[in-house]
Amino acid sequence: MYKVKVFVTLRESVLDPQGKAVTNSLHSLNYPEVADVRIGKYMELTIEKSDRDIDEVVNEICSKLLANPVIENYRYEVEEVVAQ
Amino acid sequence: MYKVKVFVTLRESVLDPQGKAVTNSLHSLNYPEVADVRIGKYMELTIEKSDRDIDEVVNEICSKLLANPVIENYRYEVEEVVAQ
Repeated sequence: MYKVKVFVTLRESVLDPQGKAVTNSLHSLNYPEVADVRIGKYMELTIEKSDRDIDEVVNEICSKLLANPVIENYRYEVEEVVAQ
Repeated sequence: MYKVKVFVTLRESVLDPQGKAVTNSLHSLNYPEVADVRIGKYMELTIEKSDRDIDEVVNEICSKLLANPVIENYRYEVEEVVAQ
């Protein structure tokens, strides 16, 4: 079994209005030192072992469903979990 | 300047309907090996140096604005960036 952590972020060139709103809120809350916030998604997948290569499966899943490759980048970490 | 990566996840005991929907979609897309998906948030903050301790600032920001401590956990990584 694998635990896969997927991080999806907006590409550098894409505006992030949600992040901008959070930055402004933090300034109102008296945190002027916060210069920028970018919001992304974080997903934890539990994947059973199968015939298919785990990297292949995760890359397919990310590009088909979890991330929009036009405006988003993704990266992931795979951790193998031994059943107890 | 600091780059802070914040990961916000739902507590283990809290149902995640969005994650369930993604799991079902992945089964429909012929990925039966995906047993579970939990959706969280990922945020990258750029914070200028100030008099306040960075850990104190980040903990305050997370508990006040970025995470709801009743249903969510958060963790973060701080990376110091040297201006070029």
